[in-house]
Amino acid sequence: MKKLLTTLCAIVPLIGTVQAQEFTSTQLEQVKQVREQALNSDLSWQLLESLTSEVGPRLPGSENDKKAVAWAKQQFEQLGFDKVWLEPATFPHWRRYRESGAIVSPSTQPLHLTALGNSVSTPTDGITAAVVMFETLDELIAAPKKSLENKIAFVNYRMNRHIDGNGYGPAVRARSSGAVEAAKKGAIAYMMRSVSTSHHRFAHTGNSRYQEGVSKIPNTAIANPDADQLERLIKAGHAVSVNINLQTEDLGEGTSYNVIGEITGSEYPEHYVLIGGHLDSWDLGTGALDDGAGVALTMAAATHIKQVARPKRSIRVVLFAAEELGLWGAKAYFKQHADKLDNIVAAAESDFGADLVYGFESSVSATSLPIVRAIAQQLAPLGIEYIRANSARGGPDLIPLRQATDAPIFALHQNGTDYFDYHHTADDTLDKVAPDKLKQNTAAYAVFAMMAANAKTTLTGKAK
Amino acid sequence: MKKLLTTLCAIVPLIGTVQAQEFTSTQLEQVKQVREQALNSDLSWQLLESLTSEVGPRLPGSENDKKAVAWAKQQFEQLGFDKVWLEPATFPHWRRYRESGAIVSPSTQPLHLTALGNSVSTPTDGITAAVVMFETLDELIAAPKKSLENKIAFVNYRMNRHIDGNGYGPAVRARSSGAVEAAKKGAIAYMMRSVSTSHHRFAHTGNSRYQEGVSKIPNTAIANPDADQLERLIKAGHAVSVNINLQTEDLGEGTSYNVIGEITGSEYPEHYVLIGGHLDSWDLGTGALDDGAGVALTMAAATHIKQVARPKRSIRVVLFAAEELGLWGAKAYFKQHADKLDNIVAAAESDFGADLVYGFESSVSATSLPIVRAIAQQLAPLGIEYIRANSARGGPDLIPLRQATDAPIFALHQNGTDYFDYHHTADDTLDKVAPDKLKQNTAAYAVFAMMAANAKTTLTGKAK
Repeated sequence: MKKLLTTLCAIVPLIGTVQAQEFTSTQLEQVKQVREQALNSDLSWQLLESLTSEVGPRLPGSENDKKAVAWAKQQFEQLGFDKVWLEPATFPHWRRYRESGAIVSPSTQPLHLTALGNSVSTPTDGITAAVVMFETLDELIAAPKKSLENKIAFVNYRMNRHIDGNGYGPAVRARSSGAVEAAKKGAIAYMMRSVSTSHHRFAHTGNSRYQEGVSKIPNTAIANPDADQLERLIKAGHAVSVNINLQTEDLGEGTSYNVIGEITGSEYPEHYVLIGGHLDSWDLGTGALDDGAGVALTMAAATHIKQVARPKRSIRVVLFAAEELGLWGAKAYFKQHADKLDNIVAAAESDFGADLVYGFESSVSATSLPIVRAIAQQLAPLGIEYIRANSARGGPDLIPLRQATDAPIFALHQNGTDYFDYHHTADDTLDKVAPDKLKQNTAAYAVFAMMAANAKTTLTGKAK
Repeated sequence: MKKLLTTLCAIVPLIGTVQAQEFTSTQLEQVKQVREQALNSDLSWQLLESLTSEVGPRLPGSENDKKAVAWAKQQFEQLGFDKVWLEPATFPHWRRYRESGAIVSPSTQPLHLTALGNSVSTPTDGITAAVVMFETLDELIAAPKKSLENKIAFVNYRMNRHIDGNGYGPAVRARSSGAVEAAKKGAIAYMMRSVSTSHHRFAHTGNSRYQEGVSKIPNTAIANPDADQLERLIKAGHAVSVNINLQTEDLGEGTSYNVIGEITGSEYPEHYVLIGGHLDSWDLGTGALDDGAGVALTMAAATHIKQVARPKRSIRVVLFAAEELGLWGAKAYFKQHADKLDNIVAAAESDFGADLVYGFESSVSATSLPIVRAIAQQLAPLGIEYIRANSARGGPDLIPLRQATDAPIFALHQNGTDYFDYHHTADDTLDKVAPDKLKQNTAAYAVFAMMAANAKTTLTGKAK
């Protein structure tokens, strides 16, 4: 708090000048109004509750995915968005329909596992084989060729817990390419400790890939307590065998839709602030944190803005399709709009749950920094600190945008300390979202989007 | 803490006298020694780790149950118990072999459920029907006859969280007899919110019963987040249908064994302090809290006592069979020893996890209270308060003893605030036990058992 105050004292005189230049006092009054409205409204909660309960899990290509698209379109319309439309996106359609596992030696015990996205099936009775454990993916990569023949490879890497989720990247390597590396050594199946900080018995799913020319082997993650159990048995000197039974289906190319709602700007309608989340989710939970929250809070934020005052530039809420299977909706969106990416004056995706937003960060040109500081000042009453690194990456669906252009990118950093306790598991359900925190998130997005849309000067990105 | 100090100050002068009468200074020195040894030893942890990892779940009648019996016998022998033996117990042998559930309307979603013990199977494809929700079992009982025909009854009662687990009794009514009451109204299956304080997606199993002359319908509990989901959908006005698929098997009468290890007393070998837990567990988790902990800590406590000094009376560690299915091991034990129950000078079962013991309570004759206070004084350094109610009930396996005689009963009350987050679920695994707390538990049982075995006067029970 002291740090926050010091920061505020230092920037206040400058902000005074900036505000005079960039925002009228009426506009600043409206920002305050939208912030209060969002903090006192249940709208984002109602949207999240409806999406996660009435639709539920939303695996791309599933019936529920279609329902989610219809749901989002209808909600945008009912909320009074000026334009609502769909844009198609194709993706590799995959589903699981049954999965189970067991330790079969030294004693029979259930093994809580889940197929990783894209995994092939096992034979109907599963695969039973001896387990070879590695502490890291690199250890597996260093194993001699053929050393895993007729074995199940098990990577036991533990993910670190951190407020910004920085343990995820290092851990996810073993998910993305573990099966490929295991198959190269002759393994007949691949198994990993979940990319999760949970000590509950939920396996974490997520996307994975195969490699041309390398045998496709069944690919699974086990819950952390189950990984602990295997580790104990192996370290105690037991020869451990497990049975893995995954029944999945590759359904070829699927199509889903980015659902887009726009509040049209009064002065520069073609210029827009892009906020949003992804509409799809994994099939295990109901996708409350990932990413129902992002969907609900950005829909609600734009609605609050419109209700207070139509912005000068447009605000476009993009609900991306098929993020979980590889950003397919985002790729389609930024490809379809490739010739008009300069119209994006600010972009931020919420895809990190809905714990309190603690930091606001930009990635903009130096000339846009005064606007950023003015926005930061209006976020401060929400307990949000201005992070001056100016190297925001936005959410995952902004990756194609960042690769294509130098659009101004923003991050409203949610506290992610507990996020990976639930992410991609059956336990990602509505009760894991705190209503008051969701309101703070909604208010933060509303303040940010309103100010980015109303600044006198158009925000510009940091040249790459 | 202040309360504890006040209590101690009040009893110290009296204790001085009692100790002079009941315990020699050498004996009190030995109590201190055993307490320190237990606090510094990994023995109970090693036993718990081995039982839950190398054996795992221990459903009565299963292969693992047999392994557990062999494991316990071998451990007692290796630990140097003077006598080790088995006593048979029969029970109704039941098992689950597959179970699944789904909400099928208004949208398709997995439903995390588990068969309650003793449940009959559904047809192979499960039962799909509309759900009728009741907030309590009493509401269901009050429903009109035939009002649930072709429906699935759902009791949505929420269990309260409390340090002494007092929410369990009221909640468990709906588990014991819910299916019977639902069937009386024509329901074709019964479903209940889990008897659990967890907000994770684990269904809680547990014993249930049918009633002669009432149709046996499939009987299941759903995880609390799933119960929340059903409640939301129903309260939003949706007609909710679910599919319940339980495949279980009634295997007739099974036999398992109470495993008993004795440290034989030097002066009154036929008199004994009975401590223990139950060796069986439900099949979903690995029975770490319920009741691997009780098994491990009482085995270790007796071992520590023997290593410090052979007690005057015997200490008998009884690991009861088939507790979960209805106290079958306990019934067999106290029946088999019915003519010698007076030999039991003190009895305490640990079957409430392994969080810190916070209270020590007796149920003894007034003349034995000075001994109890002396024991309490030696438990105080472990942070354990003397609870003066003198109405201890001991653990569930002591119920047949309490019904048959007025043996002196003791309770070492574990903090049960979190116990029902894990109890009877797949999440009851070793990582839920804190090693240091298990040591405190072990030390508490060691101090209690040693002193109860060594008191000059024999403890006597409260006449009923």
